[in-house]
Amino acid sequence: MRAELKMRRRNIALTVAYDGTNYNGFQRQNPPNVAVQNVLEERLAKIFGEQIELSASGRTDAGVHAIGQVVNFFTDGRIEIEKIPYAASGALPPDIVVKNAWEADKNFSALHSAQSKIYIYKIQRGAVLNPFMARYSWHIRADLDIELMQAALQMIVGTYDFSAFKAASSTNMNPVRTIYAAEIFNDVENILTIKIHASGFLYHMARNIVAAAVEVGRRRLTLEKFWQIFESKERKLFPATAPAHGLYLYKVFY
Amino acid sequence: MRAELKMRRRNIALTVAYDGTNYNGFQRQNPPNVAVQNVLEERLAKIFGEQIELSASGRTDAGVHAIGQVVNFFTDGRIEIEKIPYAASGALPPDIVVKNAWEADKNFSALHSAQSKIYIYKIQRGAVLNPFMARYSWHIRADLDIELMQAALQMIVGTYDFSAFKAASSTNMNPVRTIYAAEIFNDVENILTIKIHASGFLYHMARNIVAAAVEVGRRRLTLEKFWQIFESKERKLFPATAPAHGLYLYKVFY
Repeated sequence: MRAELKMRRRNIALTVAYDGTNYNGFQRQNPPNVAVQNVLEERLAKIFGEQIELSASGRTDAGVHAIGQVVNFFTDGRIEIEKIPYAASGALPPDIVVKNAWEADKNFSALHSAQSKIYIYKIQRGAVLNPFMARYSWHIRADLDIELMQAALQMIVGTYDFSAFKAASSTNMNPVRTIYAAEIFNDVENILTIKIHASGFLYHMARNIVAAAVEVGRRRLTLEKFWQIFESKERKLFPATAPAHGLYLYKVFY
Repeated sequence: MRAELKMRRRNIALTVAYDGTNYNGFQRQNPPNVAVQNVLEERLAKIFGEQIELSASGRTDAGVHAIGQVVNFFTDGRIEIEKIPYAASGALPPDIVVKNAWEADKNFSALHSAQSKIYIYKIQRGAVLNPFMARYSWHIRADLDIELMQAALQMIVGTYDFSAFKAASSTNMNPVRTIYAAEIFNDVENILTIKIHASGFLYHMARNIVAAAVEVGRRRLTLEKFWQIFESKERKLFPATAPAHGLYLYKVFY
């Protein structure tokens, strides 16, 4: 964020939800691509009467959704804080929603102040898809052994080098992260949800964990082999990344 | 349906669900418009190896969804009945799904054999929209009095002339229908569902009933006035039609 923007009086934070289907991810793009950030900045500028430059807790990929993305921005705009979600709902398209707004401390950064994040991933099981979940879950027809999947997820709870789950293209940032909790549950008929709470996520890490857990659930990968590959830190030994449209940035902790 | 098609050996009926967002309604359209029927007929033709001509329980408008649309068609194709939903799921886009298939009697017609239908309509309440329900519900920020809405719906249960709820453009078919049940419930947080079971529906009837019930719920129309307008049979005295994207053809009874 440019330094002069920090001279503005208010640091406003928002919780944002979006259906990522129609966007080129969260992070600002050059036209004709449109990212969630482009739309948010453009519409917030109208509400605040000045150019807005957002910082987010992290980017999400094209097609990935958010239930609790957090952003912040500096502004001299005068709109009362509690009116922002309502004003935003008039200015934004229906697939991007400001759920909550608060006045943050001047030192708060949605990106740098984040302590941990939860992602969830939805899988729809069964021979026949529910068409109303097609945009919002990964459809898997094969049988999945949920207990084996839970066992695989339990294995990676802790502080580890997650190189085996980073994107093949990812650069050499520190690959050590802590997973605080990883679980799978089935509270809605035919919908499995995988929930992962971690100190941070390498690029594609959540979708790569899901893809590997699904291979375990399909009994195409034993728990022993899963652990061997994880320990080998070799991305290329794990299966392809799970599709973007099952993934949701669920919550950011500060 | 053309008479020569009835010479084919099998009369197959399907229960079909679809997300209507991306289609010009159910009924077959000329290109470049695409209706659900165009896609179904084209993809089923590949599965059955011959041209398919569908009959449906009724058309649905552009943007209207279906959970339980019923169609039938005559074919000499040999695919086993229980394999049809699975074969269809490989051939169809994810927003159109064949949920069930059965061998129907030669005299069965999805259109003419229908005894009654249920439509449901979803309303999302509250200041802030859930973006994942934006395509699938009508967002109403105003407070709604559910008990008043239920009282209005109860008033029209029975056999009546429903001209006050028919489309302004609709032609002079017999406007008498029987509503067997009409109710409103709130079983998912912030989502109201209106469910109407009737012998049949005039064009736009379900959406016009919903729009009038919402006016009652917003206390902009008293129950007395609602009943007066209903009895007057004057469409133009009721409010505009509710949006298509909250409506679902839920079930057809034979």
